[in-house]
Amino acid sequence: GEEASSQQADTGSAFEGLPKIGGLDYSVEGKVFKMTLNRPKKFNALTLEMYKGIQASLKFAQNNDKITIAALTGTGNYYCSGNDLSNFAAAATKGPAEVKVMAEEAKNIMKEYVQGYIDFDKPLVALINGPAIGISVTVLGLFDAVYASNKATFQTPFAQVGQSPEGVSAYTFPLLMGPLKAAEVLLFGRKLTATEAKECGLVNEVFNEADFVQQTTDLLAKYSLLPPQSMRESKRLLRKIHKDSLYKVNEVSLEYRFA
Amino acid sequence: GEEASSQQADTGSAFEGLPKIGGLDYSVEGKVFKMTLNRPKKFNALTLEMYKGIQASLKFAQNNDKITIAALTGTGNYYCSGNDLSNFAAAATKGPAEVKVMAEEAKNIMKEYVQGYIDFDKPLVALINGPAIGISVTVLGLFDAVYASNKATFQTPFAQVGQSPEGVSAYTFPLLMGPLKAAEVLLFGRKLTATEAKECGLVNEVFNEADFVQQTTDLLAKYSLLPPQSMRESKRLLRKIHKDSLYKVNEVSLEYRFA
Amino acid sequence: GEEASSQQADTGSAFEGLPKIGGLDYSVEGKVFKMTLNRPKKFNALTLEMYKGIQASLKFAQNNDKITIAALTGTGNYYCSGNDLSNFAAAATKGPAEVKVMAEEAKNIMKEYVQGYIDFDKPLVALINGPAIGISVTVLGLFDAVYASNKATFQTPFAQVGQSPEGVSAYTFPLLMGPLKAAEVLLFGRKLTATEAKECGLVNEVFNEADFVQQTTDLLAKYSLLPPQSMRESKRLLRKIHKDSLYKVNEVSLEYRFA
Repeated sequence: GEEASSQQADTGSAFEGLPKIGGLDYSVEGKVFKMTLNRPKKFNALTLEMYKGIQASLKFAQNNDKITIAALTGTGNYYCSGNDLSNFAAAATKGPAEVKVMAEEAKNIMKEYVQGYIDFDKPLVALINGPAIGISVTVLGLFDAVYASNKATFQTPFAQVGQSPEGVSAYTFPLLMGPLKAAEVLLFGRKLTATEAKECGLVNEVFNEADFVQQTTDLLAKYSLLPPQSMRESKRLLRKIHKDSLYKVNEVSLEYRFA
Repeated sequence: GEEASSQQADTGSAFEGLPKIGGLDYSVEGKVFKMTLNRPKKFNALTLEMYKGIQASLKFAQNNDKITIAALTGTGNYYCSGNDLSNFAAAATKGPAEVKVMAEEAKNIMKEYVQGYIDFDKPLVALINGPAIGISVTVLGLFDAVYASNKATFQTPFAQVGQSPEGVSAYTFPLLMGPLKAAEVLLFGRKLTATEAKECGLVNEVFNEADFVQQTTDLLAKYSLLPPQSMRESKRLLRKIHKDSLYKVNEVSLEYRFA
Repeated sequence: GEEASSQQADTGSAFEGLPKIGGLDYSVEGKVFKMTLNRPKKFNALTLEMYKGIQASLKFAQNNDKITIAALTGTGNYYCSGNDLSNFAAAATKGPAEVKVMAEEAKNIMKEYVQGYIDFDKPLVALINGPAIGISVTVLGLFDAVYASNKATFQTPFAQVGQSPEGVSAYTFPLLMGPLKAAEVLLFGRKLTATEAKECGLVNEVFNEADFVQQTTDLLAKYSLLPPQSMRESKRLLRKIHKDSLYKVNEVSLEYRFA
């Protein structure tokens, strides 16, 4: 198959040091490191383990000289349905003190998850194969390119569930799409089609579903052969300008979220 | 009629504490507070009283727990033709000392007017029913959504009248539409159609004139039922990132304007 | 001809104080000062002399009260192919100490070149007649309008040649086109057509090749008659907000570039 060295096929060498996480697959194709969310029955919702797994994967990709570019995609019809609600379900049976500890832990995991994207200094591409919801959308401003299938949609229904935006979207979305579109999306939870997301800067290119995997695989392969040190320096320079603000907004967003 | 509790119909309860201002009507529909510029013969130009009235209205909406969202629109063919030139006409018959006092007063009213938008922390929507000019355009970057009729146009002819941009547009327009489009609009006074304004991020959605009122009324009603505290927290988070800069640019812009 | 007072025709008065530079022509049409890159055999690549010449031209335009607006365009099929590679060819025959001195000199010339754009406070328009590459693209975020022929393309192939972005594009491109499109363009060197460049805010308007010169000449003539002091104040206000950051990013970018 195309995934010549998937996690299942090769656990000894290519992925040494990477944890085995339920719902998260790894593959290396040439110099491209690809993470695939693989919980299709749960629409690829993110468990606390998966947050930590993706963060560890980014560190792995950063420190592995054979990898020049990383990508994140989903299995099945969804890209990612966001935070797995069962992450907090256990809290329902606990006392207030335990709930507070659990909330603090969730907050820290989310903070470090987003920080992982801020700190990652190799090119990072999102391949949005289907609907993307919540935190899987809000972190997209920290990627270097977002390619979407025409089946993709984007929604951040924070207001609908009584929350405030995370993933430093409060910072990146006004830069991506301007303050007015950002407010409509983040305050009112307006859902965007792939084409609308492209029009407002959240998506670089939309591909037909039938061509999506092949076209994006070709693009990643092409990019992966560019001089890695040059891509890295360019990304560091672009990130440097916003890095302190991103750290700060990440902290503040989570204070609002877990207030 | 639709305006079940317009200023005229109900002055005792729903609008308690709100001043009666010529050219500015209020209505409450459900949880939506709507301000309507009503000087059609003057193309809804803003008098000094109207600036103060809108500012007071925003405070009213902010402090009224039954209101979850606010909107501003215009009566007749125009949305708003900008600053009423008669605001400064009286100065023609005065001596230099009196003119200086009048200019200082106008500057303060404009400063507090813009600050009112910066400080307003509930969602605020502009419903642009027709041509919008000058300060009615420049403050739009402080709204959370701008919906326009296809009859709307947008113009900031500062250069043409020997002025510099106010309404913190020097800050918000480069974020909304990028520095190049912002310079073309603010330096050269280029007029935008509703569609062009949408393409460059100044408008979220364009509706046909015939459907405009109904469609936007429906949207506002829908948004007004979202959890108010969540929308407010989200807006505070988005605004917090830019608030100090907005205050500062508001001051600096008026120094340039009244130099 | 249209260039009523080209460099060749009138060296005594209109262009007093301007150096004669190979590959760079000047003209004044009404109140419009136009610089034309004129090395069509080299695709208008920029020599070190041309960098200094453009910088001197901007100072000339800034200090000449008869000029209200400036423009930059190219002769022939290309707008500009970027930095002339022969600028560094001489280094191939030198020892390490001399190479270091030459690199330092090139770095300073480039730094002051970009600073010249940051400091220029009259309106500046780019007329992109054909392909634009490298530093001729990265500085465009410092112009006030960019008009392109449908034959224009835009490319910043830094990764391809092992470099990092200059011209403060690391700062201006995320503002112009959002962080995702900016990363795709600056990290992966993605080439944009004129229409794509318009869609992402790098170009204000695309004209058919046949109409390009006439239409842009008419626009510049129209803009040049606006009150010059008002345009200048507006530009100063817009630039003031970003000026310190632009200076800093210019320095940092060149440290990355010449590391």
